[in-house]
Amino acid sequence: MRIAILTFDGFNEIDSFVAAYMINRVGLPGWKAEITCPTPAVESARGVRVSAQQPLELVREADAVLVGSGRLTPRLVEDGALLSRLPLDPRRQLVGSQCSGALFLAKLGLLDALPACTDRQTRPFLEASGVRVLEQPFFASGNLATAGGCLSSQYLATWVLWRLAGRDAAEQALAYVAPVGEESEYISRALRAVGSFIDEPTVAAAAWQR
Amino acid sequence: MRIAILTFDGFNEIDSFVAAYMINRVGLPGWKAEITCPTPAVESARGVRVSAQQPLELVREADAVLVGSGRLTPRLVEDGALLSRLPLDPRRQLVGSQCSGALFLAKLGLLDALPACTDRQTRPFLEASGVRVLEQPFFASGNLATAGGCLSSQYLATWVLWRLAGRDAAEQALAYVAPVGEESEYISRALRAVGSFIDEPTVAAAAWQR
Repeated sequence: MRIAILTFDGFNEIDSFVAAYMINRVGLPGWKAEITCPTPAVESARGVRVSAQQPLELVREADAVLVGSGRLTPRLVEDGALLSRLPLDPRRQLVGSQCSGALFLAKLGLLDALPACTDRQTRPFLEASGVRVLEQPFFASGNLATAGGCLSSQYLATWVLWRLAGRDAAEQALAYVAPVGEESEYISRALRAVGSFIDEPTVAAAAWQR
Repeated sequence: MRIAILTFDGFNEIDSFVAAYMINRVGLPGWKAEITCPTPAVESARGVRVSAQQPLELVREADAVLVGSGRLTPRLVEDGALLSRLPLDPRRQLVGSQCSGALFLAKLGLLDALPACTDRQTRPFLEASGVRVLEQPFFASGNLATAGGCLSSQYLATWVLWRLAGRDAAEQALAYVAPVGEESEYISRALRAVGSFIDEPTVAAAAWQR
């Protein structure tokens, strides 16, 4: 599984790195979440310079793409050349956005009639593009998900892990990153936030057997 | 206020960036948390390459130093030349550690008879150096603090903010990074984890007036 964490100039460090780190905890062979950028290096809103691990072209073959957030997103989504390098396709890959990343999904026509989650700063921009914004940290429909508030990146990672590696893998990653002694609180909150958006075969089977 | 986030090769992205980002949310003039490294660039355990924002020498003048965590810490703390570049001094600055960063505090003789927090992987190493490890995410005594579990970095940042900029600044940073709709839950949990280690003049005054 290859997972692209799209990261642009002006990016928010929490938004890109919490998801990347959690997804990489799985450690299965060939399983990799990578910081994916339009240029060889990008600089965060606070001046942290990070080298790209993959070029934007990874989007084409990635099993999941998470669009990170940043201060420059409202301007970046007006860049037609950049948008043309983002052939996101929820029919063949998971697509998620963190905070202002939802503006990319809206601009690419992926949100359609769906409501979405985003951070409070981005909310008016997303609403201006006709999207109904939810007062909750996470929403998903099929292969598309949106999350709002930096630390909801843990829910976006939980969704990707649950969908691609199973619920146990998601729980293990959550247990690893949770504050010591708060593991079960973090796990149950994340499973609650994400669980109602997962069609789990085992759950369906269990219900059917009743 | 200048805050050094010590970040070494093999570092854990969540541990360095959650604290740096939250502390930088304060946005007061001259207030800055920076990724501080022994070399011009460092590479995380998962291959993310980051440029140093400051050299290790910032430690000497920083108002607060947070020692990040990483896969290579047990080896790094045996490097005498590196340790000599870390004149951490809790008499004149706040000193905190995240996960395996506690091994640096132990090696530098700063933990003395104090118990400490760390992650579950580092726990046996820290215990082997004679430190009592607590089953909780955060502990502080005076100007020294330790945190365990990647996302307890939010508590370490809360402690620095509360101590250097006041409780309101800490609450604002927590509200900003919390998942949408979970702000009050995140704020009250963090204030609970950190609050008992803060001597707050206003709290003391209120108690005195009763």
